[in-house]
Amino acid sequence: MKILITNDDGIFAEGILKLACSLEKIAKIFIVAPDRQRSATGHAITMHEPIRASKVKLLDRNFEAWSVSGTPTDCVKLGIEVLLRERPDLIFSGINSGANLGTDVLYSGTVSAAIEGAILGFPSAAVSLADFSELDYDYAAEFSLTLAKKMMENKLPPDTLLNVNVPNCKKEEIRGVSITTLGVRKYKNSFIERIDPRGQAYYWLGGEIVDEDHLEGSDLYCVKNKMISITPIHFDLTKFNLIRDLESWNISL
Amino acid sequence: MKILITNDDGIFAEGILKLACSLEKIAKIFIVAPDRQRSATGHAITMHEPIRASKVKLLDRNFEAWSVSGTPTDCVKLGIEVLLRERPDLIFSGINSGANLGTDVLYSGTVSAAIEGAILGFPSAAVSLADFSELDYDYAAEFSLTLAKKMMENKLPPDTLLNVNVPNCKKEEIRGVSITTLGVRKYKNSFIERIDPRGQAYYWLGGEIVDEDHLEGSDLYCVKNKMISITPIHFDLTKFNLIRDLESWNISL
Repeated sequence: MKILITNDDGIFAEGILKLACSLEKIAKIFIVAPDRQRSATGHAITMHEPIRASKVKLLDRNFEAWSVSGTPTDCVKLGIEVLLRERPDLIFSGINSGANLGTDVLYSGTVSAAIEGAILGFPSAAVSLADFSELDYDYAAEFSLTLAKKMMENKLPPDTLLNVNVPNCKKEEIRGVSITTLGVRKYKNSFIERIDPRGQAYYWLGGEIVDEDHLEGSDLYCVKNKMISITPIHFDLTKFNLIRDLESWNISL
Repeated sequence: MKILITNDDGIFAEGILKLACSLEKIAKIFIVAPDRQRSATGHAITMHEPIRASKVKLLDRNFEAWSVSGTPTDCVKLGIEVLLRERPDLIFSGINSGANLGTDVLYSGTVSAAIEGAILGFPSAAVSLADFSELDYDYAAEFSLTLAKKMMENKLPPDTLLNVNVPNCKKEEIRGVSITTLGVRKYKNSFIERIDPRGQAYYWLGGEIVDEDHLEGSDLYCVKNKMISITPIHFDLTKFNLIRDLESWNISL
């Protein structure tokens, strides 16, 4: 069995190494990941400049690993199209440092890499550790192995993937696993304005959450209640039930 | 009436200026756009460094315009949260140089900016001119004005936006307007491998289309047949009808 792993925190991040060491128990591991922190790059791809890929040795393990100058999505494309000589059975993205819940998945490099995996026809999952600091990846890595086995036993339909968020606590404290929907999370007043040493203004994107959906069944609710959330994701952005309505607008040339 | 305009080709691109000049007929125009080409940035946001915004004068028009060092999504966020002192009635993104059709919308900075507009609660549209060269923005700009009026008359439901692609030809050659779905477009072997002057390999993302959906009703079909496509877009990535199935996988701790 072969698994391709990527992330958006960069190839030397703790989360990707813990994930690789765990999945190694059942598969040959290929890592193709950004050479640096590339969080919040969404589904960006690098079109206007070349991409570099260098083989790297990680932890003296038997991983085949490449450090890539592009985005997480570039890593999946380049891994599949160029670097790997074999087709992987699964693609995993993570383990991300921080949650990827609700509306935030749109901005997430981690989730976008798994979406790219699904676009290219591979069963894919994104795994995130839902906390801000003192992250302990051990159980999330162990759970990723459980999930990889389940993904091999069962079959994800085409053009779908799994978005997984694991609470940052010991296994004993986790209350279960729940199949969820993406909740809604809204931000406001999210820029800090400061003046630089030359008297010029600059802005820094913060992120004060002002509205969060606490509906049972949402990933946000679930992780808040110390359960692992698994949300099935698709990427067809067509709003089908609005087509009729729009036709009645009678837009013409 | 007030319209906020952004794009991903940069604030000095022809498409955004033509759009602004056209929409100016019915609204005060605010432009908040990237300081340079930012195509294919998807829904990326700038979190790890500050963002700069400078007021610029465009074409001696009465636009309020800011050139921003961030991505298209940053531009919408910063425009709404910081730069504009008034709330716009509409947000337009474009006119993009090149199509944003089918699966490609996931990578598109133009469409992502309009998605961000919808996330923030504004009726939003992305407009693209579907060709590679010799672009003539005039009719796309004229049609954007028609669309803006329709968007004011009618009401888009929350969390939806419009993705518009206009064929690159004279008005007389356009065969109509169609409300469409996003088609499927797949790429393969899309990296060119070259050797640099120092003997090192680099990769450049190309994009040979190998599979394209020609179903009547898709945006791809429509634009190929010289019609304007308008696709209603949402951004809830939950694959609802897979939840039951996944529950039957019995994934546990």
